[in-house]
Amino acid sequence: MIEKRTIELIAPSGYPHDPTALHLALQRLRAQGHHVENIHATQRRYQRFAGTDGQRAAELNRLADPSRELPDIVLAVRGGYGAVRLLHGLDYDGLQRRLRDQPIAFVGHSDFTAVQLALLAQSGVTTFGGPMLVGDFGAPEVSAFTMRHFWHALSEPTFTITSRVAQAQSADVTGTLWGGNLAVLTSLVGTPYLPPVEGGILFLEDVNEQPFRLERAIYQLQLAGILERQQALLLGDFSGGKQFEYDNGYDLNAMIEQVRSVIGIPVITGLQFGHIPDMVTLPVGAKAHLQADAHGFRLTVSGHPVLE
Amino acid sequence: MIEKRTIELIAPSGYPHDPTALHLALQRLRAQGHHVENIHATQRRYQRFAGTDGQRAAELNRLADPSRELPDIVLAVRGGYGAVRLLHGLDYDGLQRRLRDQPIAFVGHSDFTAVQLALLAQSGVTTFGGPMLVGDFGAPEVSAFTMRHFWHALSEPTFTITSRVAQAQSADVTGTLWGGNLAVLTSLVGTPYLPPVEGGILFLEDVNEQPFRLERAIYQLQLAGILERQQALLLGDFSGGKQFEYDNGYDLNAMIEQVRSVIGIPVITGLQFGHIPDMVTLPVGAKAHLQADAHGFRLTVSGHPVLE
Repeated sequence: MIEKRTIELIAPSGYPHDPTALHLALQRLRAQGHHVENIHATQRRYQRFAGTDGQRAAELNRLADPSRELPDIVLAVRGGYGAVRLLHGLDYDGLQRRLRDQPIAFVGHSDFTAVQLALLAQSGVTTFGGPMLVGDFGAPEVSAFTMRHFWHALSEPTFTITSRVAQAQSADVTGTLWGGNLAVLTSLVGTPYLPPVEGGILFLEDVNEQPFRLERAIYQLQLAGILERQQALLLGDFSGGKQFEYDNGYDLNAMIEQVRSVIGIPVITGLQFGHIPDMVTLPVGAKAHLQADAHGFRLTVSGHPVLE
Repeated sequence: MIEKRTIELIAPSGYPHDPTALHLALQRLRAQGHHVENIHATQRRYQRFAGTDGQRAAELNRLADPSRELPDIVLAVRGGYGAVRLLHGLDYDGLQRRLRDQPIAFVGHSDFTAVQLALLAQSGVTTFGGPMLVGDFGAPEVSAFTMRHFWHALSEPTFTITSRVAQAQSADVTGTLWGGNLAVLTSLVGTPYLPPVEGGILFLEDVNEQPFRLERAIYQLQLAGILERQQALLLGDFSGGKQFEYDNGYDLNAMIEQVRSVIGIPVITGLQFGHIPDMVTLPVGAKAHLQADAHGFRLTVSGHPVLE
């Protein structure tokens, strides 16, 4: 049974372009008894953004206000692009103070990765990579897998994700779980908004990117010394990258083999995370134990904010 | 009159896929009396690359060999992707020693930007952003503009590029000229291969990228503190980015206005550099004086390697 929760919407990136999906999402959340706040975020439009930079930043900074009640969940409306514009204007100190005593569950993925990594880097706030309002809660058929994993991750102090995808490399490591969208994460390299995680387990996903672009991004993490400070790389979904005759046999698998030959840490594959209907929810900044071998992997997570 | 030169080919990125363009390019260079070496580089193929990583790196490292004669010009066969794979394996010390006494003209653009920036960062070698073998020397109709600028830049100790494109911001600055392809340049942020240029004039171009991707890359340069250490941003060609209804008025101009509102240095536009038929040749690492006002801009360059 799912408890009734207060869910506050934020839209730090693009505006929702599918009114049917938006309607479905709100209807479904309300039908479960949840109280959905800040619907206004779904109605703003400025160019390709869900409002001006000021409007979108204010929405996040309001969460630092000590005089207001906090929601249980802060849910990103959708991804797209635009979060990086807000990073230099967020009230990191205020958010750190306010959320230290009352942790809440920020949830989203894709472009939301920028907000998640900045919150972890600057405020020490652990958030969740997980479903978003329009694309997931508003999907034509909502995924029972995604919903089960979402509520489980937000409710259980310790949870485990298992996979039977055979692994070419084994691992048995414990460290900080972090990551998100590869393009967004690499766009923060060299900035104060990429958390300096040591000994971490880094999960990555991306969509509609050719394998060479993914490889170039992973090379940036390698050449910047970030991968050598991690214990494992956990690859999610990377679908939608086009193949061309010119590629001449270079594909996603060839890219992963190249990465394996260059980085000194295990590369574990088959994580159900990314721009896919059935996705797990993963904390960004919690502790995790990853075990992988020829039979699959187990990822056990703890230390994330838990709904009471 | 053009002197007869020794031109050594290198192919650190993709293989050439247009045999007609390749044939035309070689024919034209030979018809002018130039001696073209290492044709072999145009014949190798490994996946989407012009040879294995080892073959492509060896081609660059051979230039450090003190026992061999050096060419006048080292010309990149084409761009594509793959140069970043070589960066950790280049003989920067050897190249620095060999090229200090006998400067040669490395020329290319696009993915070649990675090699150029790494050579500047690690060996202090000034190279040229300019035409490449297949796409430019092998174009169906070779551009007289591109050729004139190319030979002029390689032959004159001081040269000036002028533009009558009206400027929204003025500038009168002197500093190190550097830059290249935006996506490739930003993929080096945080790595030892991005030169730590202070007080520079940064030129950028890119092709087939949506404005939001260009903006995200420029934000990375801003948030990483790189733009605040430059004196001006000089924008080349950014054509080929698709527009979508979703963009809702956000386009290349809106992106440039956003960048202007965020970075504290003048943004000068209209540089004829990039993936275009008529392109100037620009040193990466030389000294430049940029003057811009409502009537256009003047860029005067000196201190680059000059063919004797």
